[in-house]
Amino acid sequence: MAVRPIDASAPDEGPLSLDGLRAQLRAVGEERYHHQHPFHLMMHDGRLSRGQLQAWALNRYYYQSIIPIKDSIILSRGPDPVFRRAWRKRVVDHDGDATSEGGIKRWLKLAEATGLNVDQVRAGTGILPATRFAVNEYLNIVRSRSLLEAVASSLTELFSRDLISLRMEKLRQHYPWLSGGLDYFEARLTQAPEDAKFALNYVYENAKTRAEQELAIQALRDKCDILWAQLDALHFAYVQPGWPPPGAFLIEGA
Amino acid sequence: MAVRPIDASAPDEGPLSLDGLRAQLRAVGEERYHHQHPFHLMMHDGRLSRGQLQAWALNRYYYQSIIPIKDSIILSRGPDPVFRRAWRKRVVDHDGDATSEGGIKRWLKLAEATGLNVDQVRAGTGILPATRFAVNEYLNIVRSRSLLEAVASSLTELFSRDLISLRMEKLRQHYPWLSGGLDYFEARLTQAPEDAKFALNYVYENAKTRAEQELAIQALRDKCDILWAQLDALHFAYVQPGWPPPGAFLIEGA
Repeated sequence: MAVRPIDASAPDEGPLSLDGLRAQLRAVGEERYHHQHPFHLMMHDGRLSRGQLQAWALNRYYYQSIIPIKDSIILSRGPDPVFRRAWRKRVVDHDGDATSEGGIKRWLKLAEATGLNVDQVRAGTGILPATRFAVNEYLNIVRSRSLLEAVASSLTELFSRDLISLRMEKLRQHYPWLSGGLDYFEARLTQAPEDAKFALNYVYENAKTRAEQELAIQALRDKCDILWAQLDALHFAYVQPGWPPPGAFLIEGA
Repeated sequence: MAVRPIDASAPDEGPLSLDGLRAQLRAVGEERYHHQHPFHLMMHDGRLSRGQLQAWALNRYYYQSIIPIKDSIILSRGPDPVFRRAWRKRVVDHDGDATSEGGIKRWLKLAEATGLNVDQVRAGTGILPATRFAVNEYLNIVRSRSLLEAVASSLTELFSRDLISLRMEKLRQHYPWLSGGLDYFEARLTQAPEDAKFALNYVYENAKTRAEQELAIQALRDKCDILWAQLDALHFAYVQPGWPPPGAFLIEGA
């Protein structure tokens, strides 16, 4: 797999403490997590149109839809039943079970609340090619790198609670017609921090050297880039002047 | 591999003739090939700065660098020695041999003519994440789809001669300081049409049904999207207002 060359040279120091590792991961989030992306800033300022929110919900659905596939790849690579039992929760959270509808269904409700047709969303008609490319890279990473790095790439969940809290407040304020579609975010408020705690402990316990810790940090950087690139593509296609590529979703009346 | 759902339902008609197939492929090019992308239009109008041309040469190098890897994957999947002998030419064209420096080296000369440091280009420092995601998807396609579709994805070469001829003329006219770096394009003027002819014949002979022909046409569409998305990312990052993602190449003085 042709991935970005990584500087895996081990610094001479020993491995970081748990607090030191957490601090490095948080620094990555400050620099690269998509809470600072101009598309999110517009969303939170109430400056997105309904059509732009539709484009967001439609494209982001593709990301949501591969998350349990991504987690199933990680499951398939985990040799330890205890690890697999813990990680399996993620697949259940997204695909649902007898007692819960699951995150994918909840995202479809959000998409429906924007006015999209659920069947079109599920089929992925009109999603941006760049969405597919970025999201598929997430699958490449969990398939081709070490299990440690695959787990570490989930650590954007360290940052998602704050973003989701803010987003729910802003969506309710600026787009009240969306309020019935926020169950997805509500559920993530508790799921994401639990998952992040497990993954952080896993990375700390399994990265035995500073060089391995650096690989884990790089995996988080790359995951942030995957989230960021999805918003870049939306912004370029759907914020003025707006150049959707051939065949992509077009905003009605735009 | 999570790829775009493809409509592989076989139309009731029989397979297209060679001329009919060529016409369908050309129609895909008219709609989706990147000759119409705003970034190329700016390039050909002489409206790109040196820094923007650097960003283009730097990012496009990543694409160039994986082409012989992509072709080696196709080699590895071709069971027929006659096919492999023919396809091997592509790896030689890019990697070079005792008598020729090869396309990758020629692209580095172009990058150097823009004023970039060759070692930085080779290392890929500062390339856009979206470039990696789009280009890596090309590797996903030639690995995970049928050999027929992998071969068909190369058929953008049906269109590249016209674009390269125009580009060489416009680069010489608007950016004369680049003229020493155009060997790559000069070589492609003859290589690409030879390769396209072989690939088109291969697709025609090996797609036995209309449904298989449709899969080949879809592979060309997806390849066009990969080229287009690379220019979208450049345009979004480096044409005003310009939002390069965290960690990406920054234009000097911008």
